[in-house]
Amino acid sequence: MSDIIRAVQFGCGPIGVAVGSLAARRSDMELVGALDVDPEKIGKDFGSLREGGEELGVVVSDDAKALFAETSPDVVFHTTGSSFPGIFGQLENIIGAGVNIVSTCEELSFPYRTEPELAGKLDKLAKEGGVTVLGTGINPGFLMDLWPLAMTAPCQDIQHVRSVRIQDASPRRLPFQKKIGAARTPEEFQQLVDEGTLRHVGLPESVAMIAAGLGWELDEIQESIEPVMAEEEVSSPLLKVAAGQAAGVKQIGRGLKDGRELINLEFQAYIGAPDPYDAVYVTGTPNMEVVLKGGMHGDIGTAAVTVNAARRVVEAPPGFVTMKDLPPVVCPTG
Amino acid sequence: MSDIIRAVQFGCGPIGVAVGSLAARRSDMELVGALDVDPEKIGKDFGSLREGGEELGVVVSDDAKALFAETSPDVVFHTTGSSFPGIFGQLENIIGAGVNIVSTCEELSFPYRTEPELAGKLDKLAKEGGVTVLGTGINPGFLMDLWPLAMTAPCQDIQHVRSVRIQDASPRRLPFQKKIGAARTPEEFQQLVDEGTLRHVGLPESVAMIAAGLGWELDEIQESIEPVMAEEEVSSPLLKVAAGQAAGVKQIGRGLKDGRELINLEFQAYIGAPDPYDAVYVTGTPNMEVVLKGGMHGDIGTAAVTVNAARRVVEAPPGFVTMKDLPPVVCPTG
Repeated sequence: MSDIIRAVQFGCGPIGVAVGSLAARRSDMELVGALDVDPEKIGKDFGSLREGGEELGVVVSDDAKALFAETSPDVVFHTTGSSFPGIFGQLENIIGAGVNIVSTCEELSFPYRTEPELAGKLDKLAKEGGVTVLGTGINPGFLMDLWPLAMTAPCQDIQHVRSVRIQDASPRRLPFQKKIGAARTPEEFQQLVDEGTLRHVGLPESVAMIAAGLGWELDEIQESIEPVMAEEEVSSPLLKVAAGQAAGVKQIGRGLKDGRELINLEFQAYIGAPDPYDAVYVTGTPNMEVVLKGGMHGDIGTAAVTVNAARRVVEAPPGFVTMKDLPPVVCPTG
Repeated sequence: MSDIIRAVQFGCGPIGVAVGSLAARRSDMELVGALDVDPEKIGKDFGSLREGGEELGVVVSDDAKALFAETSPDVVFHTTGSSFPGIFGQLENIIGAGVNIVSTCEELSFPYRTEPELAGKLDKLAKEGGVTVLGTGINPGFLMDLWPLAMTAPCQDIQHVRSVRIQDASPRRLPFQKKIGAARTPEEFQQLVDEGTLRHVGLPESVAMIAAGLGWELDEIQESIEPVMAEEEVSSPLLKVAAGQAAGVKQIGRGLKDGRELINLEFQAYIGAPDPYDAVYVTGTPNMEVVLKGGMHGDIGTAAVTVNAARRVVEAPPGFVTMKDLPPVVCPTG
């Protein structure tokens, strides 16, 4: 591999466009190709998929095999779905072409609890193919798993880890605002939850990563989801939420052992959150309270973590890895 | 290596006693020996060196060679000095015995700028000896170098990194309070600075580690030191500082390129600091402000980081490494 990382963007939805665009403007990276299955995107310049974006000379293709053969990329940024079993076939094909992978698939961030066999199969494939595969993003991947883990370095012992992420959804994309149930009645909200379409994916994975990192063998991981109700009308530039409607979602992931809670992750994303922040609380010696003021914008952060992880992934020994296995992912200053 | 890490404490001063005591009470670790040159300590039980400490069945020895042969340790916790050239011979002997090293030597945390040849020599020795050597601690080693670096993962680009550490010296050891110049007149303070005895060691190393991690090739690292003056009388349980005396020290480390400041690390430790904290500020996309409320107690943190790093060091490939080269050091829950 040369010092410049050659990257292909696999999946050209909003996150894929953000990731690929960041890769394209990085001085240590070259965007050499883009893939999607959408006939509306195939044949277009990747840069044009971004509102007001300049052409990049990278045409969206639907032929992964030909693109990989032609461009010999070092890494694929994979951003097509949240379900690990759902994207496994895509990963198989990329590995088959001998290309390293950084994927934003949430369930891939730490699948050892829910899909241990598939994770093992992926690791075997990656090793055989001589490539490294990582699932990451801002959350899961950093804020509610790697960051809390990394903050335990100065602790002599730990009894409990808590992470809180309060997001104001107002500046986010409309699909995100809809995904969190904003402007739904409580009944509609519950229906979407029951259908499985309204849910931030990743809390159980983050709980499992923290537990594995700290050597806690959990008996159980619980997850709850409920609406954050608007008590008065609130609105984003894109959406109006009436009083009595859901402004967004509150989810809690918990890790328990012998009936005792060891890990508590609280995720809130709603329109009009007055004081967004991210925080880590460790109960131990010493107790720690670490706050990221104002919180982290999800899309900006996910694009950054994904692109920043590329060098670590390219340099790592072959296999399937998670964020806790890699030296710190850093921003090479842009 | 078995799953239990067998550790020897090398150096039984206050930090060494804190490190070795923590190692002794860890369930994943066994303290199998202790070394010092002080005739007052040799032959005593290591546990008795701690005020009110229970005997541990570990007798302080001055014969490193015999101790290593007898106990076959996995790791040495080395806590004898701040100067890399000053402790090089000790490291050589430990490496010669085939034992991994975690050292609190501040200059060892990132010596590539000031002592590149010696660092290269150490790396070669470690590889030949099949062991891993790390310099770490709470600062340098975590708060003002690894933590800022790790917090850049969600950034798309970075223009400036700043780290601030404000410590209230009141609850610290008397030698620490004296080391920072508390209760000295301005003239005495300056004299101690000129003699080189009044100085927190590590800021230039932390600046250099951040720069290396982010790919910044600095032209210059600057360091300044001045007293924090007591405007009125302040006191710790151990020391009284009159108005007009130094309450402690303020040091600034800066990294510059083309005349522009890229890195600014501000270290303050003084008696009566009203609002101690540690913080990281990143100027970039996005800007970030991360605060560890109340700040981190230096001795507690140094013992924790040192002991917690042992597993990563034992598992790492042979060579001389720094904190930015290792997967996250975590607390294995105690």
